[in-house]
Amino acid sequence: MSRGEAMTGGISLSLEVAERVCRVRLVGFDFDGVFTDNSVYVFEDGREAVRCSRADGIGLAKLARFGVGAVIISTEVNPVVSARAKKLGVLCVQGCEDKPSALERILGERKLTFDQAAFVGNDVNDLTCLEKVHLPIVVQDAHPDVASVAAYRTLAPGGYGAVREVCDIFEQVLGSRAD
Amino acid sequence: MSRGEAMTGGISLSLEVAERVCRVRLVGFDFDGVFTDNSVYVFEDGREAVRCSRADGIGLAKLARFGVGAVIISTEVNPVVSARAKKLGVLCVQGCEDKPSALERILGERKLTFDQAAFVGNDVNDLTCLEKVHLPIVVQDAHPDVASVAAYRTLAPGGYGAVREVCDIFEQVLGSRAD
Amino acid sequence: MSRGEAMTGGISLSLEVAERVCRVRLVGFDFDGVFTDNSVYVFEDGREAVRCSRADGIGLAKLARFGVGAVIISTEVNPVVSARAKKLGVLCVQGCEDKPSALERILGERKLTFDQAAFVGNDVNDLTCLEKVHLPIVVQDAHPDVASVAAYRTLAPGGYGAVREVCDIFEQVLGSRAD
Amino acid sequence: MSRGEAMTGGISLSLEVAERVCRVRLVGFDFDGVFTDNSVYVFEDGREAVRCSRADGIGLAKLARFGVGAVIISTEVNPVVSARAKKLGVLCVQGCEDKPSALERILGERKLTFDQAAFVGNDVNDLTCLEKVHLPIVVQDAHPDVASVAAYRTLAPGGYGAVREVCDIFEQVLGSRAD
Repeated sequence: MSRGEAMTGGISLSLEVAERVCRVRLVGFDFDGVFTDNSVYVFEDGREAVRCSRADGIGLAKLARFGVGAVIISTEVNPVVSARAKKLGVLCVQGCEDKPSALERILGERKLTFDQAAFVGNDVNDLTCLEKVHLPIVVQDAHPDVASVAAYRTLAPGGYGAVREVCDIFEQVLGSRAD
Repeated sequence: MSRGEAMTGGISLSLEVAERVCRVRLVGFDFDGVFTDNSVYVFEDGREAVRCSRADGIGLAKLARFGVGAVIISTEVNPVVSARAKKLGVLCVQGCEDKPSALERILGERKLTFDQAAFVGNDVNDLTCLEKVHLPIVVQDAHPDVASVAAYRTLAPGGYGAVREVCDIFEQVLGSRAD
Repeated sequence: MSRGEAMTGGISLSLEVAERVCRVRLVGFDFDGVFTDNSVYVFEDGREAVRCSRADGIGLAKLARFGVGAVIISTEVNPVVSARAKKLGVLCVQGCEDKPSALERILGERKLTFDQAAFVGNDVNDLTCLEKVHLPIVVQDAHPDVASVAAYRTLAPGGYGAVREVCDIFEQVLGSRAD
Repeated sequence: MSRGEAMTGGISLSLEVAERVCRVRLVGFDFDGVFTDNSVYVFEDGREAVRCSRADGIGLAKLARFGVGAVIISTEVNPVVSARAKKLGVLCVQGCEDKPSALERILGERKLTFDQAAFVGNDVNDLTCLEKVHLPIVVQDAHPDVASVAAYRTLAPGGYGAVREVCDIFEQVLGSRAD
């Protein structure tokens, strides 16, 4: 293990990322491209479906166990987002052109600040949130225009375990701290 | 062929795995991530669909031919699991938080013990079953936290022929024994 | 170009395969794993969907232009097969446990023999057809147990252009012959 | 940066492509294989669904911002194309066996010529359009028979960001020009 690395479990983290994780009390997630592979299945009548990962549920339960909140923040109002959020038991805010304001409001309700927040995104409409939070995370296959602002880039692509990986990291860092 | 390997057909097995296969009379399968690629397709009304492999049916018919039982054990109650199990003609137990108890009950009904069972899983909620059976198997893309307890890790990922591969292994070992 | 190779277009073929193509008047296709990637999407009510390639339609039109017949022969009776065959305008025989008999009947109706037929398959239930026809073809991701009987293995996996590739080969060989 | 290359952002473009981009006032897009991965999901009742990318919407908004028009031109009449086009707010022409005529008509309505058009395609039925426009583009996984006529081949495959990449290129070239 090289200097500046914190091996807390399966995933190798920089000490900086591990330290940031310790501070976070709420994780904001973009939906499309994070919970999904950024694809949308379009039907003849205009209805849509998305492809999510079954691994995410176990991950979000870990976050809850450590007292870390989770919220899905999505630009578009879309019933598939509500459906997935409901199944996962995660708070969901939709139809917010201004994502940072939505995140700030939720943080405020919990008496938290951006300094205690992480955000997981994949595209340019996540930039403003990523720039405000203490721990900005992008998925492996994020658009090049957002990759540079991230403190951590998941090994897993969106929809293929990225959300689970983020939650696993919290377990690694917070679980080892509890030892 | 190196020492300790049993080449019984297309797949190279360790002698230890081949010997374990000989003892197994029932194979328990997790559903999501084993019969599927661990994805779930979410529709606007909350209904779900999963992606399975057509190769599995031929495999399960092989198991039956050799008198080896098969059962799907799933934590969640989900109509897609029942639908797939019915199509494949495989027994299916759902809604069991405690998977080992469910497996033990089914084994008991057939006057079998964990020592005559295999289990195929992919995530941490399969750990307790994997640790109890004689032949613990994980899929290629299993979560790192369960990979270490497996006696065999399939070459195929979940939903892409993993179930078929497990059944092919039984055919290889039991078929060659019958020769 | 090495000896024994016939470069008739984009795909490099052995002279033997090119010669066999010239004789073929009817191509039989398995459905699952050939027109699809061998996956099946399972819905809560048991209904199914499959994933096909838009490239196949253009390919089958090429076959027709050269007077080569096409038929889908499927073991299972499944409405998705009928739906796809209808859309593609291809004859479709379903529910035939004995695929070679079904193929022989269709050949007979056209006063053709197995010696003037090709078959494209992917799994062990295609073996008997593959062994009888003059030009046996398997898809890239065919089960190991059938790969050995093929005279040609497509570069494209099933559902990802395998059918189109077979049709392109006929165009290459028969089109160059017409020159 | 080597001679003849214009580095306008994330994607490395030849000067020739960058110069052609500057002239284009309308981009014509094929649908299947460009907005999708050329797959079609077939249901038991014959209805279809397609897989698109959420990244495309942000891309098309960029085109509009630079005053570049966009139109989807599709051979087949298919409700999924209308559904996707409506969602994206893009003009859509369907059921045109003769794609170049359809494109010419739309160009004429805007007092433009082929010399001010780009076209993005993936298969042989796009050849005539690709040969007429000033900037012919194919997706990464285009059929070999059309790849040679393209001035630019996207790095992303169809349905996996190809449309977005085309739009990003326009932003790179036209955005840097505005500086």
